[in-house]
Amino acid sequence: MKVVMKRESKAGAELAQKPIPQIGPRDILVKVLATCICGTDAHIYNWDEWSQKRIKPPYVMGHEFAGEVVELGSDVTNIKIGDIVSAETHIICEVCELCRTGQGHLCKDTKIFGVDIDGTFAEYVAMPATNAWVNSKDVDPGLLCIQEPLGNAVQTILAGETAGKTIAVVGCGPIGIFGVTVAKAVGASKVIAVEVNEYRLNLAKELGADVVINPLKEDPIQRILEETDGLGVDVVAEMSGSGIALNQSLKYVKLGGRVSLLGIPSKDVTIDIANDVVFKGITIQGIVGRKMYETWYQVKGLIQSGKLNLEPVITHRLPLEDFKTGFDLMNSGNCGKVVLYPNKE
Amino acid sequence: MKVVMKRESKAGAELAQKPIPQIGPRDILVKVLATCICGTDAHIYNWDEWSQKRIKPPYVMGHEFAGEVVELGSDVTNIKIGDIVSAETHIICEVCELCRTGQGHLCKDTKIFGVDIDGTFAEYVAMPATNAWVNSKDVDPGLLCIQEPLGNAVQTILAGETAGKTIAVVGCGPIGIFGVTVAKAVGASKVIAVEVNEYRLNLAKELGADVVINPLKEDPIQRILEETDGLGVDVVAEMSGSGIALNQSLKYVKLGGRVSLLGIPSKDVTIDIANDVVFKGITIQGIVGRKMYETWYQVKGLIQSGKLNLEPVITHRLPLEDFKTGFDLMNSGNCGKVVLYPNKE
Amino acid sequence: MKVVMKRESKAGAELAQKPIPQIGPRDILVKVLATCICGTDAHIYNWDEWSQKRIKPPYVMGHEFAGEVVELGSDVTNIKIGDIVSAETHIICEVCELCRTGQGHLCKDTKIFGVDIDGTFAEYVAMPATNAWVNSKDVDPGLLCIQEPLGNAVQTILAGETAGKTIAVVGCGPIGIFGVTVAKAVGASKVIAVEVNEYRLNLAKELGADVVINPLKEDPIQRILEETDGLGVDVVAEMSGSGIALNQSLKYVKLGGRVSLLGIPSKDVTIDIANDVVFKGITIQGIVGRKMYETWYQVKGLIQSGKLNLEPVITHRLPLEDFKTGFDLMNSGNCGKVVLYPNKE
Amino acid sequence: MKVVMKRESKAGAELAQKPIPQIGPRDILVKVLATCICGTDAHIYNWDEWSQKRIKPPYVMGHEFAGEVVELGSDVTNIKIGDIVSAETHIICEVCELCRTGQGHLCKDTKIFGVDIDGTFAEYVAMPATNAWVNSKDVDPGLLCIQEPLGNAVQTILAGETAGKTIAVVGCGPIGIFGVTVAKAVGASKVIAVEVNEYRLNLAKELGADVVINPLKEDPIQRILEETDGLGVDVVAEMSGSGIALNQSLKYVKLGGRVSLLGIPSKDVTIDIANDVVFKGITIQGIVGRKMYETWYQVKGLIQSGKLNLEPVITHRLPLEDFKTGFDLMNSGNCGKVVLYPNKE
Repeated sequence: MKVVMKRESKAGAELAQKPIPQIGPRDILVKVLATCICGTDAHIYNWDEWSQKRIKPPYVMGHEFAGEVVELGSDVTNIKIGDIVSAETHIICEVCELCRTGQGHLCKDTKIFGVDIDGTFAEYVAMPATNAWVNSKDVDPGLLCIQEPLGNAVQTILAGETAGKTIAVVGCGPIGIFGVTVAKAVGASKVIAVEVNEYRLNLAKELGADVVINPLKEDPIQRILEETDGLGVDVVAEMSGSGIALNQSLKYVKLGGRVSLLGIPSKDVTIDIANDVVFKGITIQGIVGRKMYETWYQVKGLIQSGKLNLEPVITHRLPLEDFKTGFDLMNSGNCGKVVLYPNKE
Repeated sequence: MKVVMKRESKAGAELAQKPIPQIGPRDILVKVLATCICGTDAHIYNWDEWSQKRIKPPYVMGHEFAGEVVELGSDVTNIKIGDIVSAETHIICEVCELCRTGQGHLCKDTKIFGVDIDGTFAEYVAMPATNAWVNSKDVDPGLLCIQEPLGNAVQTILAGETAGKTIAVVGCGPIGIFGVTVAKAVGASKVIAVEVNEYRLNLAKELGADVVINPLKEDPIQRILEETDGLGVDVVAEMSGSGIALNQSLKYVKLGGRVSLLGIPSKDVTIDIANDVVFKGITIQGIVGRKMYETWYQVKGLIQSGKLNLEPVITHRLPLEDFKTGFDLMNSGNCGKVVLYPNKE
Repeated sequence: MKVVMKRESKAGAELAQKPIPQIGPRDILVKVLATCICGTDAHIYNWDEWSQKRIKPPYVMGHEFAGEVVELGSDVTNIKIGDIVSAETHIICEVCELCRTGQGHLCKDTKIFGVDIDGTFAEYVAMPATNAWVNSKDVDPGLLCIQEPLGNAVQTILAGETAGKTIAVVGCGPIGIFGVTVAKAVGASKVIAVEVNEYRLNLAKELGADVVINPLKEDPIQRILEETDGLGVDVVAEMSGSGIALNQSLKYVKLGGRVSLLGIPSKDVTIDIANDVVFKGITIQGIVGRKMYETWYQVKGLIQSGKLNLEPVITHRLPLEDFKTGFDLMNSGNCGKVVLYPNKE
Repeated sequence: MKVVMKRESKAGAELAQKPIPQIGPRDILVKVLATCICGTDAHIYNWDEWSQKRIKPPYVMGHEFAGEVVELGSDVTNIKIGDIVSAETHIICEVCELCRTGQGHLCKDTKIFGVDIDGTFAEYVAMPATNAWVNSKDVDPGLLCIQEPLGNAVQTILAGETAGKTIAVVGCGPIGIFGVTVAKAVGASKVIAVEVNEYRLNLAKELGADVVINPLKEDPIQRILEETDGLGVDVVAEMSGSGIALNQSLKYVKLGGRVSLLGIPSKDVTIDIANDVVFKGITIQGIVGRKMYETWYQVKGLIQSGKLNLEPVITHRLPLEDFKTGFDLMNSGNCGKVVLYPNKE
């Protein structure tokens, strides 16, 4: 089968052929109908510092996907041939204290598709049945494959109260943009998007942001205080990973407010803990992946509510062979989600 | 000034004249721009069993209102002449354990406008400044005066998780109808309205209910299980006060679900505690009034979100003099909120 | 091997011989070191109405136990030969929405040891490895086998805030008595035990209850109000299953308080929902089993705190052969936990 | 009357005479029976950087106290002459959004006794009746005056789950030492005290710390991981204000754990947000003062539980005139709480 392979410890990736994978008794084999490029994939493609430490080529890239089940392991009972599935791509140990107490998303023995094991930029993928999420059959697979990053946004936004609250979404890459539509869908009184890339800021606007701020053009602290009667926002969903943005958010979050961090700073961040954290009485949360599987049920419910505006987030659809175009788009910032189709005619 | 007075211990009420009230140093005097008929007012008008125990005529009826501040007590600093205010009509003691721990809505020494003291079916009303809620000046007073019953709905719906959840609103009088639009606004995946009156069921539909059920015409338990993959709803907002409806809701709420009770049953209710509460692992909550003032800020935020559909709930607007028409409408069930205007030309 | 078997659909049970069970690839075989009689076992022994509907003889009774692992299925990796284990005796499906969202204790497809499948009143028992809880090796197995009912008490008491709160434990069978020591251990300001059996009331006193009330001798409502400055208790842990006791507890719980129900009423209960639930703004919770496995970690932590007083709860220790004496004790109410030893010399 | 006055903008303070203060209609006059030296008082005495910005001499120092009510303002109804009161020393505006939503401890318009207005190092003090906390009359005033710093510890420890959890208390000044006894009282499985001063470490041990660590003598990260099966602690109560200690705590807190910050770093702190916060999925909370008045009721309940060990924390008792000795003790670190007696013979 056709795959996109990270073959060497350097930037880039290449199209290759591999045998269709064998499955174990508790696994399923899935024909990949659509697979998205994640920010993580771009890091690996670009071979940044993090990738150099974590990734062990050669292996097949990719993890966000939707596909059709074509083969079942002998012990699998909860999935059927023909089911259209997505995947929670964190494969956890299931026996540690964290896994046994609803914190499996933090399991130390997590393996990730397309990071630790062969991934989904391929015609077929083998996966544990317990990680499969069965979808409705009449939804566009391009939309189904974004449920995982959408889940990141949902876990971040819903990590505290939201109804009638003011919410700043900082960083409007695809997950941030999802954050905007999620925040609107759950009754935020005002959603403020902060992003330096104008393409993405426009996308945030299109998805319903009430206020958009380009911090290269205006002071986000002053503007957000103006937009919130001088009080600041109730909630910050930090998805940029920028230390500067994080520090700004500590200034414009309300006393007693919540700052939920999904973005990954590449360097240490220096913080005025006394004035910006302790005296403000705020809460800062680290957010990892998706709760397994509370977040997936929330995603399902929010999609069913009809309140999410997801279509505009998928800005590009390409055959798997054009993955380099996809990565170029990701690196430019001038895109939402880029979907690759390994099996499309 | 012109008032609607409950003069005697019997059904009915009458139009009368009273002097404009004097105010104390911590009070304000408000010119009433609009005042709604609450279900409680109808109970008092009809002189039901509860009213006979609680109400001590003669006094001025009414409590839901919006008006313009025309006079300030000498110690008042947080309100200005000309402010357009609504009122939290529970006047609490502020010094008991409940008041001092965020549970003032449960204070045993609560006095209520239009129940314990002179109310708002009048041209002017005196009230403590601390109970005033300052509104935007450019909103229709008819809409402003519904914030208190809207707050009841908000406290009920938001008494637990809502995003992506299935929510049944049982009983679609005005507060139930508000419950429907609130549930939609905060991202419920499916909102199911249950109501015996077709007029109100249609109003629920108009406000966004995904499913409407008339339990006189179909079995709500069976229908709701069908609508929820056999699992039942995550949340029940019980606003009917019917014992039968309450027992049905215990059957169609999901295992581990939430049943929030705002409706007041007039008789004891017999419940299969073992099978419908304990083994189901559900939570039942009694809901009283509005949290002072968390609920008011939630109401404000939800109105600002632009997601609430409030206009259709106000079905009738009448001069104060026509209050009898208003009570007849309330008794028929063929209305949403009925607004009275004491000062309208 | 020696077992206590429920052979026929009538009251009683009998000592019998059965082959040592075979295990599957994900199971373990455990030599039973100690096993307790649960209230559920007594219901089955007495062949009450519930048992007649639920139980399908013949099968081996018993479920609370501790033992030594003597054989491992081929796929088992998290348990070792020689481990001393207890069991969570609810075997759940692991694939339904409840199991996948931290509510496995409510799974509809639960099978229970000694109820649905062969149990632990036996020299050996086969069980799924995922249900095993590995213990410290230097603790008395008699104490280890009470962790499951202790877990019921822990889930009930910890279902809301407890530090500095007044807590009434209603019904002081073994789980209620555990509730008393748990409530003391987590910082309750005052623990009030309510129980009609004087033997058990004395046990509650011995375990640290600050106040003990026999409702046959004094009015629990009046007494509890006196003990709480007229406010009532913050928390009720209802473990009696008595409808009368439940109704009393609704009278003496504080406004805004919590009533957690673990006791199973045998009949419907008639409740003044308006005055005792809605207007009081209380929360009523149904409690089922133990959270899998949050509750087990809480139990472990509380035992490690050294604050639990467990020894006095085990009032009788008997060889398995004397199980009838054990059931007689249970029926008399004059005991705490009765431990049976199938393998003791 | 005799007072300790901060007369000039420089280090030190002096004994002086002032008239007994006049009270307003909503105030009370209290004869000070005992007053403690707080860390804040020491900062002001030492005239550190923070004090130079915040404090406007001349004024009377001190805020932690207990005393007897000797005069009531004309509007005061909830306090009686002869009541023994302590004070919540944050005087808040009561009308802002924070004050009206249970977050008054974060009010921007807070005035603090002995910081912004005349304090309690005096024979008499005037205060608003709403800030008075009525105590039992038969408790040592020395113990009563520590309720405010005890409340800081209570708010910090109880800012999340505690029963059966491992808790590290970092920094064992008086509030940290209170934290140790509070953590034990609410059922922590293991309480680990971290402190560089041996005198205070011994005090922590005496109050019940299961493990004490002097980070000058051993690596706290390694030791705490050893003490927690390599998992780290569930909860960190950071009361040292040391940036180094804060960074260490982020290493030894469990994945998904909680770090509650009461200590005030004097400089910015550089943090590895990616690895120590986001990927660990932890929660960091800023803690300010005491919740008004939830924390006070928790303090009361915990004292009533009989589980707090408070006596040993009061290490020194001095007449007011010896305040300099008290400040010297505070600066040495070789003390717990130092109580001053303005009216003692």
